[in-house]
Amino acid sequence: MNPKRVVIVGGGFGGVNVAQALKRAPVEVTLIDRRNHHLFQPLLYQVATGHLSPADIASPLRRLFKRQQNARVLLGEVTGFDVDKQEVLLRDGTVPYDTLIVAAGAGYHYFGNDEWQQWAPPLKKVEDALEIRRRVLSAFEMAERAVDPETMRAWLTFVIIGGGPTGVEMAGALAEVAHKALRHEFRRINPADARIILVQSPDYILPTYDATLSQKAAAALEKMGVTVRTKARVTAVSPTTVTLKAETNEEVIPARTVLWAAGVKASPLGEALAEASGASLDRTGRVQVLPDLSVPGHENIFVIGDLAHVLNEDGQPLPGVAQVAIQQGLYVAKLLQRRWNGKTARPFRYKNRGDMAQIGRQTAVVQIGSLRLVGVLAWHLWWIVHLLYLAGFQNRLIVFLQWAWSYFTHSRPALLITRQAEDQVPRVADVPLEPVQQT
Amino acid sequence: MNPKRVVIVGGGFGGVNVAQALKRAPVEVTLIDRRNHHLFQPLLYQVATGHLSPADIASPLRRLFKRQQNARVLLGEVTGFDVDKQEVLLRDGTVPYDTLIVAAGAGYHYFGNDEWQQWAPPLKKVEDALEIRRRVLSAFEMAERAVDPETMRAWLTFVIIGGGPTGVEMAGALAEVAHKALRHEFRRINPADARIILVQSPDYILPTYDATLSQKAAAALEKMGVTVRTKARVTAVSPTTVTLKAETNEEVIPARTVLWAAGVKASPLGEALAEASGASLDRTGRVQVLPDLSVPGHENIFVIGDLAHVLNEDGQPLPGVAQVAIQQGLYVAKLLQRRWNGKTARPFRYKNRGDMAQIGRQTAVVQIGSLRLVGVLAWHLWWIVHLLYLAGFQNRLIVFLQWAWSYFTHSRPALLITRQAEDQVPRVADVPLEPVQQT
Repeated sequence: MNPKRVVIVGGGFGGVNVAQALKRAPVEVTLIDRRNHHLFQPLLYQVATGHLSPADIASPLRRLFKRQQNARVLLGEVTGFDVDKQEVLLRDGTVPYDTLIVAAGAGYHYFGNDEWQQWAPPLKKVEDALEIRRRVLSAFEMAERAVDPETMRAWLTFVIIGGGPTGVEMAGALAEVAHKALRHEFRRINPADARIILVQSPDYILPTYDATLSQKAAAALEKMGVTVRTKARVTAVSPTTVTLKAETNEEVIPARTVLWAAGVKASPLGEALAEASGASLDRTGRVQVLPDLSVPGHENIFVIGDLAHVLNEDGQPLPGVAQVAIQQGLYVAKLLQRRWNGKTARPFRYKNRGDMAQIGRQTAVVQIGSLRLVGVLAWHLWWIVHLLYLAGFQNRLIVFLQWAWSYFTHSRPALLITRQAEDQVPRVADVPLEPVQQT
Repeated sequence: MNPKRVVIVGGGFGGVNVAQALKRAPVEVTLIDRRNHHLFQPLLYQVATGHLSPADIASPLRRLFKRQQNARVLLGEVTGFDVDKQEVLLRDGTVPYDTLIVAAGAGYHYFGNDEWQQWAPPLKKVEDALEIRRRVLSAFEMAERAVDPETMRAWLTFVIIGGGPTGVEMAGALAEVAHKALRHEFRRINPADARIILVQSPDYILPTYDATLSQKAAAALEKMGVTVRTKARVTAVSPTTVTLKAETNEEVIPARTVLWAAGVKASPLGEALAEASGASLDRTGRVQVLPDLSVPGHENIFVIGDLAHVLNEDGQPLPGVAQVAIQQGLYVAKLLQRRWNGKTARPFRYKNRGDMAQIGRQTAVVQIGSLRLVGVLAWHLWWIVHLLYLAGFQNRLIVFLQWAWSYFTHSRPALLITRQAEDQVPRVADVPLEPVQQT
C-alpha cells in the first residue's frame, strides 16, 4: 500500500514540529518552503542589531530532516491548493497529498498604507534583519557626515512602531547599540545622543502582559534611553518624518530610520486555502478551523501556527507566537497517528507556558503562570530558555559564546553594512560632505 | 600648526596597516572606504561555502580605529583626485590631504568578456560570497528537482575558472560540501555525484608554488573528487555551459554553476590617479611607483597593495597578496615618520614570509623559505597562521570553534540561501516539478 502522503506547507515552528513528530509514522512527509532554512524568529532582532549572524539562528531545513527517512524537503513557492484533486499548487508544479497541513505563518501589514513599507521595513525574514541592520548603521554614518544639526538629529532619530515583544526587544537592543556598542566609534557625533522612540497605540506596551509588568518594562526602557510613546497612533510615514497622533495633538517627528513592528497579517495562502476549501477567514486573514485544527468539511486539511484562527478558553484568539505553533504541530501529528490507528483525539488545547521578552543587557520581563518577573532573574531565565529552544547544539554553543562575549565587552560582533544591490553607500543629496573636521 | 592630514583610500590590508602604524604620529588620519568593514579576504571562500559567517571575517572599520584618537573613518565612495588642490574627490564631497595613500585594491576582470560575469561571479566582497553560496546551494536544489538526467547533471556540475589560491581553495571547499556536508540531505540526488572542475590555462595550478607542490596539490584535489583541467582556456561562458579549449580540442561542458577566480584587474582608482598625477599604469591597471612606493613627481602620494606595481629583486612584479599590502603599509608609515623627522628611508623591500593555501579538511600546501609541505602538517600551519592574522580576538575564538566543530562533524553551519531581491526561489523553466517520488 502506498504510504499516506502528508504535505506540510511552511518550515516555521509549526511545520517543522509536525514533520518531526511524524518521524516514526508510516507516512511520506513532504515539507515545502520558499526558503531553505528554518528561522528562530524570536532572536531575529539580534541579527538586526548586529548581535548575531543569520547562521546562528537559521538552520537549513535539509539538515533538520537529514536523518528522518520518511521526510523530504522541497524548496518551492506554493501558490494555491486544489482540494478536489488533493494537490498543492506550486509556481512550477504540483504536489499531491493525502493529508495537508498549512503552516504558512504571517507577515506584517500596514493598515492599508503599504507605501509605508519602504520607509518602515518589517522584521520577519533574515533579509529584513540585514536590511534593518544596514539602515541603522547607515543612519549613524549619515549623522556623522551631516553638516546641518537638524539633519544630523533626524539621522539619529529611530522610531519603532509597535510596542509588542518585537518592538520592545528592537528598542532595547537599539538603545544598547547606540549607548554601548558604538561608543567611541565616531568622531563628530555621540551615538548615545540617538533618540529611540517606541510608539504604541494602546495604553501600555506589551499588552499581553499584566499592566504592572508593562509599566515596569516601559520604565526600564526609559532608563535605557528609549522614549516610550503610548496612546499614540502613526498617521503618516515619509522618508524623513513620522507623524504621530496622540489624544489631542499631532506631532511630526523628523526621523530617517523607522522600523515596523505593528499589525500582523496572515499569509496570503490563507486566502488561497479559503477559496479552495470554502473556509472562512478572520479579520487578519487567518483561517478559522475546527477545534481539532482541521478546516471545516475537510478532515484531512489542517491549519496551524500564525495562520490558524483558534480561540482559547476565554474566547480570545490565540496569539501568533512560537509556542502556539509548536503545540499545534505536535497536536496534529498526534491526532493523525491516533486517527490512522482508528482512534479519535480530543480538541486542541493551548497550554500557555509563559511569555518572556528581553528589554536590555540584564533585564527581561517574564510572566509564567502566576510568576511575574522583571529584571536580572527574568533575564537569566530569558536567555536560558532561548538557548534551549534554539535548534542545533552548535548554534547554541556559538550563540552562548557571542552573548557571553557581548555581555562583558558591550560589543556587537556583526555591525556590518552589507547588501546585494550595487549601490553600496548611503547617498543623500542634502548632506554635503564637510572637509576634515578640526575638532 | 595644523597637523598633517594623511588621507588613506581603502580599508583593506594595506590601508588599515598604514593607518594603525601612524597611531602615535602627530597627524590626522582619515581612512576612506566604500564599505564599513575590513575584510579578511583569505577566508572569504569559507563564507562562500557555508563554513563561516560574514561577521566572522569582517571587522567594522570604526571598531578597528575606535581607540586611535588621531584617526577617523569616512564611509564614502572616492571618484578621483585633484593633486593640485590636494583633494580626494568623493561622489558627494571632497577631502583635503597633505599626504595621500591610495590602497584601493583590485577586482577581477574577464579578459574583455564582461558579459561572463553574470554567469561566472567573482569572489571579492562579502556580497560575492553570499551570492556564490546562494548559487551553489540552489544548484543542488535544482538538481534534486530536475526530471531530465542531463539537466540534473548540469546542475551538479561546478566549474571554477582559475587555478590560483582562490580557485584551489574554492574547489577543495566545494568538494567537501558536496561529499561531506550535504551527505544524506537530499532524497533523489547524491550530492557526492557533483562534478567539480578546476580550469587553469597554465601547465600547473598554483603557479607561484614549486612545480612539485603544484603537482601534489593537484593530486590531492583529484583525490577529493575535483577534476583538475590544466592547459585549458575558457573560450565561452553561457548560463548553461562552459566552453574549454585545450591544446587540440574544444569541449562544451554543460554546467549551471560557474565561478570566476581568474584574471585580476586593479581598481579603476588607479586610472583616476594616473590621470591626475601623470603616473603610468601597467597592463593590469596597477600604478607604477618609485622604489619608495611614491608616485613619480609626487612625493606625498603613495600607492600600496594590489594597486601598486612594484618589482621584486628578480624584476618580477610583486603578487597581489595580503602580506605585500601589509608590508607596504608598514613601510609607508615608517617612511613618513622618518621624513617628518628629517630623515630619509631606504627603498621598500618585500620579504616573502611564505605562501600557503588550504586544499581540504586535512591538507594544505605551504612554501616558506626552503620549506615545502603538503598534507596534515601544512594544514595545521595553515589554520594557525590564519587564526593569528585574523583581526579581533572574538573572531578568532568563534572561527576556531566553528572550524573545530566542522572538523569533527563534517558539517557546515552556514548553508543558507539568502538574498535581498524579492525573487527567493530559483526558477528554471525547463525543470518541471515531479510529483512525490516513490523511491
